[in-house]
Amino acid sequence: MTETKIPRATAKRLPLYYRYLNILHDGGKTRVSSNELADAIRVDSATIRRDFSYFGALGKRGYGYDVDNLLAFFKDILDQDRLTNVALVGVGNLGHALLNFSFHQDSNIRISAAFDINSQEINTVQSGVPIYPIEQLVTQLQDQQITVAILTVPSRVAQEVANQVAETGVKGILNFTSIRLSVPDRIRVHNVDLTNELQTLIYFIDHYDQK
Amino acid sequence: MTETKIPRATAKRLPLYYRYLNILHDGGKTRVSSNELADAIRVDSATIRRDFSYFGALGKRGYGYDVDNLLAFFKDILDQDRLTNVALVGVGNLGHALLNFSFHQDSNIRISAAFDINSQEINTVQSGVPIYPIEQLVTQLQDQQITVAILTVPSRVAQEVANQVAETGVKGILNFTSIRLSVPDRIRVHNVDLTNELQTLIYFIDHYDQK
Repeated sequence: MTETKIPRATAKRLPLYYRYLNILHDGGKTRVSSNELADAIRVDSATIRRDFSYFGALGKRGYGYDVDNLLAFFKDILDQDRLTNVALVGVGNLGHALLNFSFHQDSNIRISAAFDINSQEINTVQSGVPIYPIEQLVTQLQDQQITVAILTVPSRVAQEVANQVAETGVKGILNFTSIRLSVPDRIRVHNVDLTNELQTLIYFIDHYDQK
Repeated sequence: MTETKIPRATAKRLPLYYRYLNILHDGGKTRVSSNELADAIRVDSATIRRDFSYFGALGKRGYGYDVDNLLAFFKDILDQDRLTNVALVGVGNLGHALLNFSFHQDSNIRISAAFDINSQEINTVQSGVPIYPIEQLVTQLQDQQITVAILTVPSRVAQEVANQVAETGVKGILNFTSIRLSVPDRIRVHNVDLTNELQTLIYFIDHYDQK
């Protein structure tokens, strides 16, 4: 991947392409034209074709692009060249699952610090990751120059923890709590709402399957 | 919610609206017009306005719809009237996290059976949920008429387990493994790819934050 050659404006659109293609994929769509994509994501089709040519993806006249190929392709590009160290805040059940999750196997992402309150695991190493007391959150994030935090704390303390995270250099939060966090504009929040995922799935099968 | 009055075609479009609005929300967009939505999800704007009027959501001329209001609104509609029993296949770390996850608190969803292999927890009750040996998967799903399964098994056995699930009346799978499952058309798969979520977040902050 010679990602350096890709213009920044093009690079910026990549996650948008990626997310929309995932929606198409989940909807069972196998191909898409640049015109359809253009309408969907508010980028004109000539720009999309030019963007895709930077990536090396070529559509076929009268067929468009193969959705699965594009997805696999963008997944490759999204892979990072350099290691990103990530903090995990909240080592309950889900936190433990993520500690054991093999992010690093598929990607250049590694949980390098975890934080919890009131746990017997504080100041121990779990799955190779040191667990710090939550009181050290701000200091450690700054010392380790961590830019991404995963929030797996109970919802009732989520905003309070997010406020502390916002005192550091963190630029992105992956939020597993059910709270919609309020953070400064410089921090990007991605919400992973497992209840919503299940609800949407159930709604789909209820409304698509009726004979 | 008088959901019975909503035409089926309208109901079918709801998850699509919901997903696209979540993308807009995550991108920091606070309002959207029916024309923008129309272009994005390939439904004409008159249909969208009619759909939304069934839901009782009204846009303001020259302003459009408030994204957060629409999201909260659709979240309400997606709530089920009746309880949906769900099976959890694979009681490792993530499985345990989901067993303890309070789906039922926010929604009418309940994990009513879990399955694992070779675990000391087989034939015990964990977090109120009975754990069955995986050999009983097909029988129990059929006996309990379960229509949704959550897959939290190791990736290497994911397809094999999906094949067994496909022998039952299950209509939807929430897939937490990194495998893209191959299943019959009557089964809808939603993929929750945590590595992708993190990668996309990291890509976003890398490319949007450069000064």
